[in-house]
Amino acid sequence: MPYVNIRVAGTLTKEQKAKIAAGVTDVISKEANKPPEAILIFIDEVAKENIAKKGILLDPPE
Amino acid sequence: MPYVNIRVAGTLTKEQKAKIAAGVTDVISKEANKPPEAILIFIDEVAKENIAKKGILLDPPE
Amino acid sequence: MPYVNIRVAGTLTKEQKAKIAAGVTDVISKEANKPPEAILIFIDEVAKENIAKKGILLDPPE
Amino acid sequence: MPYVNIRVAGTLTKEQKAKIAAGVTDVISKEANKPPEAILIFIDEVAKENIAKKGILLDPPE
Amino acid sequence: MPYVNIRVAGTLTKEQKAKIAAGVTDVISKEANKPPEAILIFIDEVAKENIAKKGILLDPPE
Amino acid sequence: MPYVNIRVAGTLTKEQKAKIAAGVTDVISKEANKPPEAILIFIDEVAKENIAKKGILLDPPE
Repeated sequence: MPYVNIRVAGTLTKEQKAKIAAGVTDVISKEANKPPEAILIFIDEVAKENIAKKGILLDPPE
Repeated sequence: MPYVNIRVAGTLTKEQKAKIAAGVTDVISKEANKPPEAILIFIDEVAKENIAKKGILLDPPE
Repeated sequence: MPYVNIRVAGTLTKEQKAKIAAGVTDVISKEANKPPEAILIFIDEVAKENIAKKGILLDPPE
Repeated sequence: MPYVNIRVAGTLTKEQKAKIAAGVTDVISKEANKPPEAILIFIDEVAKENIAKKGILLDPPE
Repeated sequence: MPYVNIRVAGTLTKEQKAKIAAGVTDVISKEANKPPEAILIFIDEVAKENIAKKGILLDPPE
Repeated sequence: MPYVNIRVAGTLTKEQKAKIAAGVTDVISKEANKPPEAILIFIDEVAKENIAKKGILLDPPE
């Protein structure tokens, strides 16, 4: 019953999400020997002002 | 200090969320012997195009 | 496809986990109108020295 | 490679998020001896009707 | 700065984890146009008695 | 009711965890105007073979 959470900065198109879901499911299914139908993926599209690296927001205040 | 995260596909009404919060708190409080006031619940309503099962988005591109 | 993550301080017996899983699944299934077989629950048992409230570990250094 | 997820009820200004990101990165960098550039922070602003304490939503139905 | 959390039931060998990390990074890098060095993956190996589907633990009490 | 999850590679001493909990609580309390007693922190110490950057485990197979 693998659960996968993918958090990305900004937005993705539905086509991108579909390809990511298919590709990640394929990798985990093959490498971890899990049936694809048991794999559940949640994609979180997070605004850049809500993500920080090195203590600085990706979209900082001016 | 139990923390509970519930992620569902699509949206819930405020009434549904209230009942889920009450019911889940009751179960965990009773079965795990935790005081209800220590139980914190976060509900995430996730768009169907951001969830995949078997590698396919619940709301796939056409 | 609800996903539920329950994080508790300390450990639970297998019987407690079984009751929590059954009870939480029942609540979410009924209140959110989701089929029970779609509900996936992960329980994390977290050491008290890894949880803090009010800035103080539940199991603090002496 | 510390990953930090901060979930708050309601919204924050971009200035608040910037200060939180800077301050939390500083604390973890110093106390855990991790380079600041390896610290990744995600801030989730969660609606009060999606958070419950003691089984009651912070923004309950009337 | 994609963050990926993969939670699986039971354990994986280090070789399996290495292949999953490489494959998932490759998929997300290509499909989401993110540099591989920005992708951070955490794999959680969760005991079967801590995971439930349909309200039943994967490793239930006897 | 802020919830904070800090995931680090490897282990921390109890003293390090105590300082991180105190410092992070202080920052969030001040900058987000939240009472310290409402802030809940969970620290996850994750084995290096379970974390990957750039598709490579921090503790890779030989």
